[in-house]
Amino acid sequence: MERPRHQGMAKNTYMRWRLPLVCLLWEVAMIVLFGVFVRVGPEADAHWEEEKQKMNLTSDIENDFYFRYPSFQDVHVMIFVGFGFLMTFLKRYGFGAVGFNFLLAAFGIQWALLMQGWFHSFKNGKILIGVENLINADFCVGSVCIAFGAILGKTSPIQLLVMTLFQVTLFAVNEYILLNLLHVKDAGGSMTIHTFGAYFGLTVTRILYRPNLEQCKDKQGSVYHSDLFAMIGTLYLWIYWPSFNSAISEHGDAQHRAAINTYCSLAACVLTTVAFSSMLQKKGKLDMVHIQNATLAGGVAVGTSAEMMLTPYGSLIVGFICGIVSTVGYVYLTPFLESRLHIQDTCGIHNLHAIPGLIGGIVGAITAAAATEDVYGKEGFIKAFDFTGAYQTRTPSIQGGFQAAGIVVSVLMGFAGGALVGPILKLPVWGDPATENCFEDDVYWEVRRPDKPASP
Amino acid sequence: MERPRHQGMAKNTYMRWRLPLVCLLWEVAMIVLFGVFVRVGPEADAHWEEEKQKMNLTSDIENDFYFRYPSFQDVHVMIFVGFGFLMTFLKRYGFGAVGFNFLLAAFGIQWALLMQGWFHSFKNGKILIGVENLINADFCVGSVCIAFGAILGKTSPIQLLVMTLFQVTLFAVNEYILLNLLHVKDAGGSMTIHTFGAYFGLTVTRILYRPNLEQCKDKQGSVYHSDLFAMIGTLYLWIYWPSFNSAISEHGDAQHRAAINTYCSLAACVLTTVAFSSMLQKKGKLDMVHIQNATLAGGVAVGTSAEMMLTPYGSLIVGFICGIVSTVGYVYLTPFLESRLHIQDTCGIHNLHAIPGLIGGIVGAITAAAATEDVYGKEGFIKAFDFTGAYQTRTPSIQGGFQAAGIVVSVLMGFAGGALVGPILKLPVWGDPATENCFEDDVYWEVRRPDKPASP
Amino acid sequence: MERPRHQGMAKNTYMRWRLPLVCLLWEVAMIVLFGVFVRVGPEADAHWEEEKQKMNLTSDIENDFYFRYPSFQDVHVMIFVGFGFLMTFLKRYGFGAVGFNFLLAAFGIQWALLMQGWFHSFKNGKILIGVENLINADFCVGSVCIAFGAILGKTSPIQLLVMTLFQVTLFAVNEYILLNLLHVKDAGGSMTIHTFGAYFGLTVTRILYRPNLEQCKDKQGSVYHSDLFAMIGTLYLWIYWPSFNSAISEHGDAQHRAAINTYCSLAACVLTTVAFSSMLQKKGKLDMVHIQNATLAGGVAVGTSAEMMLTPYGSLIVGFICGIVSTVGYVYLTPFLESRLHIQDTCGIHNLHAIPGLIGGIVGAITAAAATEDVYGKEGFIKAFDFTGAYQTRTPSIQGGFQAAGIVVSVLMGFAGGALVGPILKLPVWGDPATENCFEDDVYWEVRRPDKPASP
Repeated sequence: MERPRHQGMAKNTYMRWRLPLVCLLWEVAMIVLFGVFVRVGPEADAHWEEEKQKMNLTSDIENDFYFRYPSFQDVHVMIFVGFGFLMTFLKRYGFGAVGFNFLLAAFGIQWALLMQGWFHSFKNGKILIGVENLINADFCVGSVCIAFGAILGKTSPIQLLVMTLFQVTLFAVNEYILLNLLHVKDAGGSMTIHTFGAYFGLTVTRILYRPNLEQCKDKQGSVYHSDLFAMIGTLYLWIYWPSFNSAISEHGDAQHRAAINTYCSLAACVLTTVAFSSMLQKKGKLDMVHIQNATLAGGVAVGTSAEMMLTPYGSLIVGFICGIVSTVGYVYLTPFLESRLHIQDTCGIHNLHAIPGLIGGIVGAITAAAATEDVYGKEGFIKAFDFTGAYQTRTPSIQGGFQAAGIVVSVLMGFAGGALVGPILKLPVWGDPATENCFEDDVYWEVRRPDKPASP
Repeated sequence: MERPRHQGMAKNTYMRWRLPLVCLLWEVAMIVLFGVFVRVGPEADAHWEEEKQKMNLTSDIENDFYFRYPSFQDVHVMIFVGFGFLMTFLKRYGFGAVGFNFLLAAFGIQWALLMQGWFHSFKNGKILIGVENLINADFCVGSVCIAFGAILGKTSPIQLLVMTLFQVTLFAVNEYILLNLLHVKDAGGSMTIHTFGAYFGLTVTRILYRPNLEQCKDKQGSVYHSDLFAMIGTLYLWIYWPSFNSAISEHGDAQHRAAINTYCSLAACVLTTVAFSSMLQKKGKLDMVHIQNATLAGGVAVGTSAEMMLTPYGSLIVGFICGIVSTVGYVYLTPFLESRLHIQDTCGIHNLHAIPGLIGGIVGAITAAAATEDVYGKEGFIKAFDFTGAYQTRTPSIQGGFQAAGIVVSVLMGFAGGALVGPILKLPVWGDPATENCFEDDVYWEVRRPDKPASP
Repeated sequence: MERPRHQGMAKNTYMRWRLPLVCLLWEVAMIVLFGVFVRVGPEADAHWEEEKQKMNLTSDIENDFYFRYPSFQDVHVMIFVGFGFLMTFLKRYGFGAVGFNFLLAAFGIQWALLMQGWFHSFKNGKILIGVENLINADFCVGSVCIAFGAILGKTSPIQLLVMTLFQVTLFAVNEYILLNLLHVKDAGGSMTIHTFGAYFGLTVTRILYRPNLEQCKDKQGSVYHSDLFAMIGTLYLWIYWPSFNSAISEHGDAQHRAAINTYCSLAACVLTTVAFSSMLQKKGKLDMVHIQNATLAGGVAVGTSAEMMLTPYGSLIVGFICGIVSTVGYVYLTPFLESRLHIQDTCGIHNLHAIPGLIGGIVGAITAAAATEDVYGKEGFIKAFDFTGAYQTRTPSIQGGFQAAGIVVSVLMGFAGGALVGPILKLPVWGDPATENCFEDDVYWEVRRPDKPASP
């Protein structure tokens, strides 16, 4: 090694027994809980032939698998390749970015299947899962990936697993409050995924504040090829975001509409991001950080409303605004948060998820409040907002109010959750890196340097 | 910086006010035009429940979304990741390749939705869009990405946006002439996308000829990892090309057949590309440029005929020929075009899109002319060529003639369009780079060099 | 060049006439054979309209294309991007990894369409192909990609084509024995693809043993960015594996269930891989080799049973075990195989495909043997194991026995096939590299070094 390293001196980052123990114990717990609770649902059960007759279906194509599986796979790519590679922009933290994201997401989806299952798919003592549960588990983990963005490079894999355990739990609670108690619509998760995930992550990183982090300023940067790797993440997130926002919408027009609106919002967002990236820099040059991140804000910001009758031009307006807001955030807000509020937000999730998530919640509330039977059609109106049963008497403006309440709840849950989990992560037992070793893969990974032979 | 740079001396490449202005104004224009004209179509509208009854559909699965959305996403990947990364082969132009492609495509799809909408989906003063429009917009932008390949590294982002504005417009006109006036089949766009796009781009690059470009010879090359990034683009284009050629074919057998034929053609093309890449080099070694590009020619060349009864072996023959023609083009034709005709074709689109596009048009004309009721079945024959209404009396040989006319029109529109747009791009107001700064990201991008710390 | 190279001295690696000859002749052979034998099947034929009426189908959505095309494209990505990039981990063999994989797979799918067609889709003298054939061809080629992993970096492209020719043939025979004669279930190919492919490849690499390969130890390693490229391969394989295992399962519940079970198994596998990667290393650091490979073992190991009623927790258990077994294999078994048995397994396919494949076969046999009408339902039971016609009287325990026989047959066919093909590949006419030039792209590729200008 070209210079002496201090890991394990200032801090004990030795993972050999701790990490395996956590992974193995938790996985055993998953197996036990799955054994007790989880079974495949009727559409994935070999009794499906009989079920089909009961449901009066004439063809296998009516199986939900064919409505949602392609979208599921797109979402799956977003979580593992999209988020994973987006965070590889750091010059020396590519393994951690893509590898820890892989680890926490693989654990998180299992725990999310259970947590969300207990709340939403629990029947006769069993959680019955199908493709929609897989999508929802990916969604839930998406909020953890977002929070990971704030603390990227500053935590150990054990801390990430601990955070995932808690955050998935709180996600499920928050989601239950919004979807079931408040009866709020949030198919693409502006509130449940982005707002909650971002404020959770920002609170955690505030609590884990490291005073001398600027000594790693150099390592917080990118190199040419790490920026290209990150663009793989960006583009897959951007391309598949229409699948994300439409993945769990109602069959038919709602899925179709959500995809179109998201496509439009994202397209507009790219242009305003480029505009402001150039405008806010003295030399007028474009900054890869903005292109990699702010171009995605348009997808976040129609997460609630994309399945509503937002209209394509409405989507363009939302995308237009979010490209600007997000880019401005990267230039002015991130340094401000760091210097004044001691919020060290490695990936700038405040600009990509928190603010666009809030905007998304607000746009959703307004769009819901503005809904009319005329625009949606009589049946479409009821179907779009699920104004049935106990909610038969809800009016659009009341729905708008509840949507707004959903934003507030998500923000508060984010803060409260972060405030709860942050101190736990601060315990000196999880093997977090010393500040001088932040953003450095070789604390937790066997790294073969490009300029050295593989074996000494 | 290791050596003095002259950007901004020979040429003013300062983008700070010009680029933001263009992006913002045009995006505002999009919003206004979308506001006036664009709405979601019946299959994405909340009135779908009523529509379903009118159309006598029993299930949501009959929504076009489920027929085309997976193909749409594949095409979307091709445009943004495929074309974007294919062009990252240049050692110092990765940001420009993937970033400018992102920018022009994001603008282009919006403008294409409008232009194609006015021609094809205009009803009662509104453009009604659905998933098929999204695919067509991506297709249209594909032709711009192709043209971008010819001028890669030699233009400013504003020039690219200006080119996109015009090219999308002309694409829509050409497409209207072919599909509506000539009633030509071209589902995968051999003529409308590849032939038109390539001759447009070649004409533009001819007009933008730079006499001393050989001084950048070094920067026009690749490095090891930039070639691997480019292979990401190649492989996604290759893998998803069956989706591209089948994306807007008729439901059922036509989509199925188009995918199979394209798969076959592409497979054959790889083998002849490898054969000729080795054969045409003294040392017999393979050249990444050929593998990255010529392997795709087989997809281009069945763009018209893949949905016809080309047969799998017919597809193999087309792929076989195109792998050879394209590789030979890279070795002999590109240098010839550059030295004799002053056509500086950075990515060699002449070999990948122009010639294979022409071949594709011809193969389509022959396949159409050779069609019989016996091979297609009575109903299938009428459905395949849409010989209904005013076209009821068309015979295959007449159709073949019209197909051939479509090739000629596309070539001429490409030339004429390029001849119109080239001089506009040559105006000294768009901030194009000086010749010594071509193929260099740091003219328009904040670049952190791998061998330097991120911040000085 | 920084040091003298000896290629072409010790061995003649000059490909100029040999490689083109093989590629062209074989492609011509494909064209002839396709011309004689291959046509599109009824669902891709223009007679489909009439066929639909015969089959009493009311909608085009019943075309198999819509049931399987999205899964097909996922599998296609796995073969070309997944396997291709997984093998780019070698610092100087990225072109060979991704390029030769491309070449052999492009040839292999054509030959597989024929071979599998003769065995399974041959009617009235013609092979009728549809989307399921395309998937099966990709599957077949998958087994060749696996074998390629064992000999990666040590063979010429001609050797690979020769191996592909034979291996595809033997694959089809083995598959026919298992699926038709033994009437075994193996939708995700634990036996037919992984076990067969791996033992075939291991036998071949044993026969091609190179005594002094440790002199290339340095080049057998990775560099930082080559490990990130490999992670692209890993993640796409991991993400799309549920599509792989469900792609050719029966419509409806079987596809749905196979995807869910695979998803679960893979998730569990990641955690135990991480656990053992850290545990087996003195410094407790994670090793990218394990993360890149062992995380996938869970997909391999449910290849037979995923479409059965394995249950989600059963899948977790399988994944749990395989992550451990595979990682332990990388640490202890690979060096042992190399030093004691002279099996030089570049990618460690023994740990990723051979052992998990065997486990997959065994899990499948047990799951089949344990099947009851109660768990599957009366109709589901018959459908799941195809206990119709001649197999009406099979009981689960008998089926379990046949499944076990399928494992043995696959292992033996792998050994026998490798023993047959290995010596053929050893003939001194195929242009394999000298040992000192192994794992080095510039034997077969034009390579521009990162530290040198593109042109001298």
